[in-house]
Amino acid sequence: MTISTTFTRLLGITHPVVLAPMGGVAGGKLASAVSEAGGLGIIGGGYGNPKLGYGGPEFMDREFRAAGNSRIGVGYITWSLAKFPELFDQALARKPAAFFLSFGDESQFAPRIKAAGIPLICQIHDVEGARRAADAGADILVPQGTEAGGHGKQRRATFTLVPAVVDVAGSIPVLAAGGVSDGRGLAAALMLGASGVLIGTRFWATPEALGSEAAKSSLVRAKGDDTIRTRVFDAVRDIDWEQAYSGRAIVNDFTRQWHGREEDLLRAPADVSARWWEAQRAQDMSQAVVFAGEGLDLVTSIMPAGDIVRGIVREAERLITQPEHFSTTADGF
Amino acid sequence: MTISTTFTRLLGITHPVVLAPMGGVAGGKLASAVSEAGGLGIIGGGYGNPKLGYGGPEFMDREFRAAGNSRIGVGYITWSLAKFPELFDQALARKPAAFFLSFGDESQFAPRIKAAGIPLICQIHDVEGARRAADAGADILVPQGTEAGGHGKQRRATFTLVPAVVDVAGSIPVLAAGGVSDGRGLAAALMLGASGVLIGTRFWATPEALGSEAAKSSLVRAKGDDTIRTRVFDAVRDIDWEQAYSGRAIVNDFTRQWHGREEDLLRAPADVSARWWEAQRAQDMSQAVVFAGEGLDLVTSIMPAGDIVRGIVREAERLITQPEHFSTTADGF
Repeated sequence: MTISTTFTRLLGITHPVVLAPMGGVAGGKLASAVSEAGGLGIIGGGYGNPKLGYGGPEFMDREFRAAGNSRIGVGYITWSLAKFPELFDQALARKPAAFFLSFGDESQFAPRIKAAGIPLICQIHDVEGARRAADAGADILVPQGTEAGGHGKQRRATFTLVPAVVDVAGSIPVLAAGGVSDGRGLAAALMLGASGVLIGTRFWATPEALGSEAAKSSLVRAKGDDTIRTRVFDAVRDIDWEQAYSGRAIVNDFTRQWHGREEDLLRAPADVSARWWEAQRAQDMSQAVVFAGEGLDLVTSIMPAGDIVRGIVREAERLITQPEHFSTTADGF
Repeated sequence: MTISTTFTRLLGITHPVVLAPMGGVAGGKLASAVSEAGGLGIIGGGYGNPKLGYGGPEFMDREFRAAGNSRIGVGYITWSLAKFPELFDQALARKPAAFFLSFGDESQFAPRIKAAGIPLICQIHDVEGARRAADAGADILVPQGTEAGGHGKQRRATFTLVPAVVDVAGSIPVLAAGGVSDGRGLAAALMLGASGVLIGTRFWATPEALGSEAAKSSLVRAKGDDTIRTRVFDAVRDIDWEQAYSGRAIVNDFTRQWHGREEDLLRAPADVSARWWEAQRAQDMSQAVVFAGEGLDLVTSIMPAGDIVRGIVREAERLITQPEHFSTTADGF
């Protein structure tokens, strides 16, 4: 079965399932696997700042090579990309299948992306942001709810944000982001008016994803009740996010020690940060950051990304056409 | 059309749509209107504390009379009901169609509710709470996401909490709560595995609801981006909620002045509270509390509760059986 939507037709893909461009996680191999299975893979350039352990032109070169000939997109954190204009030029030159921008004013990049004929996907966090991105020329809008892993806002949740954005999006296709991990999520997103879904956390727990085995194991072990939106991992890395943003991550000893004390952490002696970086490099899960969404309850094993895409579509299709726990009947109502 | 589920069959009702027992809002007239339209109306006893402007035995007497012969349920805030045992006895004696408990340990009331043959509906906010309520004997579980209006937790959102609770609920029917305002929400909730929905905010904007015209108008005027989870209205009313709970309300001058300064508010001179109560009684919307969910974008008019029930079911049924923005096709996949 396939589920055809305005989004799949616009991008010329088979399934309405998109890989979230998770920085340092969504590399070429994972993006390729999602695209080859019929979805859309997007390499995550993140901050574009190699000081953070990934990003930069060499990273992107390597990951595009790893993707081979697959048709894939590229994504960056908007406000950070603005500091690395050569990365923007490099990305445009590759003619990606889509350009994904999140967190910041997309109008600074939109004209050149549009002029290059590349579909512009904009992730936003409230209805106000959806209007701004539509005005900037977004071809696809991605409302991201607070349940999503990684950075975002506390402000809106997927269940209400998606229909509200659909209602202001006009003919622009909308993808639901935040909390989608299985076929139930895809089917629900379609009912809310979305034309597809953006999935992050579920695709990290795959053999193809970048990141350590320790991080992937912690995704499988942790549950949705075990995540928290926090700024501690920005504070310890000295990354200058706007106050409205936080990152959802798995709770560990480091969040228990510092969450709610971010100002103290920013003023802490340099060795606090040095020790954290050491633990991060060693992938000591009591300290290291594992950005993950509330959908973790549904992430119970590491499995190939292609199987995830196919399984999600199959389950959604079955729920829509052959539901088991409810039935609709004509009664002249 | 009707949508039949394990929940509608258990309660013997026509539509899987339940009125949230909003304290001081869901009175007998509103509960009756929802039940007469085929859903389940529940009168909201709230704290059961008449000092807060509603609640107490006289309030409940009056509202049950207002409901006439309609088959309706009753709901209370669990930790507060424990302080008013006579209200619990009064509620049981009325043999309500269901007993709805939220916020606290339901095991203290469950045995007598079950012994009276009354279906026990438990609202919970995380998977841990769902397990506790199931152990206590809940007949129906209501996972409430952070997007809901009124009190709840910041911890989990509807989109991920519902399927996670469905997966631990076994044969117990689940109702989705938080952010459901239209047929898209009902259809999405069914896809997530729920057997129905609990709706609050949308039912407040009805002629049948208790509360002022000023409050109802503000529901129609405000949007989903305009709400905030806050403890300021608990602080100014000196209500002793556990730290994990906050209430989602429409942002106004009072929240702008005090949100994030709850400790200052608790220590503020008595006239701050006195002035707030005066504004609350006068329904001055710059100060008064209007608890409301993120689903406000979809609340665009005041309309009769029965029309809301019928409209939601009709829209959900159409989305499931005749979707317009997507199509499923067999391709041997």
